Order: sequence, then C-alpha cells, then structure tokens
Amino acid sequence: MSPVSPEFQRVIDLLAKLPGLGPRSARRVALYLVKRKDTVMRPLARALEEAADAMRTCSTCGNLDTQDPCAICANGRRDPTAICVVEEVGDLWALERATVFKGTYHVLGGTLSALEGVGPADLNIAPLIERASSETVKEVILAVDATVDGQATAHYLTDQLEGANVIISHLAHGVPVGGELDYLDEGTLAAALKARRPF
Amino acid sequence: MSPVSPEFQRVIDLLAKLPGLGPRSARRVALYLVKRKDTVMRPLARALEEAADAMRTCSTCGNLDTQDPCAICANGRRDPTAICVVEEVGDLWALERATVFKGTYHVLGGTLSALEGVGPADLNIAPLIERASSETVKEVILAVDATVDGQATAHYLTDQLEGANVIISHLAHGVPVGGELDYLDEGTLAAALKARRPF
Repeated sequence: MSPVSPEFQRVIDLLAKLPGLGPRSARRVALYLVKRKDTVMRPLARALEEAADAMRTCSTCGNLDTQDPCAICANGRRDPTAICVVEEVGDLWALERATVFKGTYHVLGGTLSALEGVGPADLNIAPLIERASSETVKEVILAVDATVDGQATAHYLTDQLEGANVIISHLAHGVPVGGELDYLDEGTLAAALKARRPF
Repeated sequence: MSPVSPEFQRVIDLLAKLPGLGPRSARRVALYLVKRKDTVMRPLARALEEAADAMRTCSTCGNLDTQDPCAICANGRRDPTAICVVEEVGDLWALERATVFKGTYHVLGGTLSALEGVGPADLNIAPLIERASSETVKEVILAVDATVDGQATAHYLTDQLEGANVIISHLAHGVPVGGELDYLDEGTLAAALKARRPF
C-alpha cells in the first residue's frame, strides 16, 4: 500500500507535468505546500483559478491579457506601423521589459517544426499576413529565436510576406551586452565581426 | 507599464516561492499553465484545494494522511514495538517505498539547528519521548539524515530517551547499493570498511 493518499498523489502527478519539475521535485514541492496550507497552498489554488478565469488571448496579436484586445493593441500611443513577431508570450514580455520597442506585437505560438509536426496552419500565421497586408503596417520585425526552427520560420514568413508592401527585418546578431568573448561560440563571433560598426 | 496583469503576476509570485523555482522558472511554469487552462491549470487548482482540505497531520506520529491517526498508526498489522524516527514526511515515504520496515514512525518535522534557531520545543520531540516511554515500545530507530544537524538531533534524542527502557539504534553507514567506490567520499568509505561483514 502506498503511504501517499490519492488526493495528495494527484497534486504530485499534476506538479510533475510542469516544465522543470520531475516526480521527485514534484513530491518535494507538494510536501512544501502541505506544510504551508494557508500561506501558500490555498492562495496558489485560488490564484490559479482566478488567473484561469481572467486571462484571455488577444484576438489581434495572440498576447495574454485580461482584456481583448490586449493592453498593447488597445494602447493608442503604440506605433501601429511596426509589428514585432515573436514565438511566445514570454518573448513579448522580455521585449517589453527592455522598454525600447514602441510598436505592436504578433505572437506565433511556436515555430514551424518538421520533427514535431508543427505546420503553418498550427501557428498564428494567417492573421499576421492579413495584418501586415493592411495599409497601416510599414515594417515587420522577425524577433524569432536564433535556432534552426526559429530561422526556418523566419524564412517561411519572409516568403509569405512577399505580397504585403512591408520592410522585413530581424534582430541583430552580435556579442550580448556584458558578455565575455571567451565564452561566445564561433558563429556569434563571426556574425559580430561581420556586422562591426565604427567606434 | 508591466505587460503582465496583476492576476497573472500573483500566480508567478506564488510559484516563485516553491522550492527549486525562481522568478524566471516561475514565469515559464505560469505561461505553460495558462496555455493548458483546462487540462492542467484548473485541475491543479482544484487538486490543491482538495488536498489542502483532505490532508491532516497524524496526532500520534506526525505523518500526513487523510485520516487521523494515519493509515500506518491505525494499521493493526504494523509492529508497535519499534518506532522509526525520521526528519520529514518525505523520509517516511522513502522508507515505505523500500517496504522493509514493518513498525511505526515518528516524524520530527525537522532537525535541531543552532544556526536557524530550531530548538527541541520546535520539533515533535516531547510526544516521541512519551510514546517511547510506554511499555509496548522496545526499540527506537533514529533514521535522521547523516548531516551535522541530523547527528546533533540524534545525540539529543539519545540523551532524552535514556529514561525510557528502549534499544536505540541508527541506520548503517556504508556504500550505497549500486554505488561506485570511486565517487564516494572518504568518510563513507572509512565507515564501510570499519563495519565490513564476512562474505
């Protein structure tokens, strides 16, 4: 007989599905929670339920927010002529934390991947082409990851956007700010050298 | 303005408190959850709430279960003459998974720690002394961690149990089953050699 009750086992099983947690760390987290029932466990349960009720996907850009259109799409002071295309909502947040981009976003919801069977129809691509084809939009910035799948997606989007009258750009490659050359791979160093700028 | 809504930020903040998760991985987990609202997020919220309602601490041994006394203390086929003292409920579960111990347990809820200001009154020690002093109990096995705090706790318990008429034992030190000598520390090797057994 297992010493773990079914109610508790269910918490462990669900926690073990989360990214970065396995069965062992899920057990540890579950024990941590049950020792803090009123300070963490119940508040977390309620916060999850409330967030699940409140969060919606923006029908324009695919961002997550409590309103649709999201605060960024609804913000009249954002530049509607530039769309920054990102893979996931987390990437959009990372760019917003940098507070340099004043345009709007478009969240793809992943990348094309032959291995994982993700095709163009599985991503938020058709609405992007439609948005980019409007008179207002002048530039589409492809801020996808510098991975094989990310770059394949960028190439596909470039092809698809040919009909739309927009400038297509991508993020610069180079040395990360604060990065040490010694730790950088050859590809990044080569790209940084090729794209060198006058001092 | 932060792109993250307060409802969602609250989930991230609570997740970041869990052991093994930081602000960055909490954000990753939160985004994973909100993409799987109905398959993971709401079920997890409900499972947490249900487990928080169902789980109680056994008033005899300190184990976590849906009943009090717990299934182990209430089980007539467990040997009541032996008490195995562990630090945490997770340790009890680990021993139960090994399915070799047929006695009962006692969960201390931690170890004595001068650094963290944990004294004997903060642990489940007084009830242990009382249980060990009863006629029934013949042996107390101190299955605490082989750490400095664990061993200090074991010494304290040995002193306290002097009045009770019980055999006090501890887990054997030695080479872990499946372990490679090359990777073992000197202390473990010395203990294993000293406690060698005829082949």
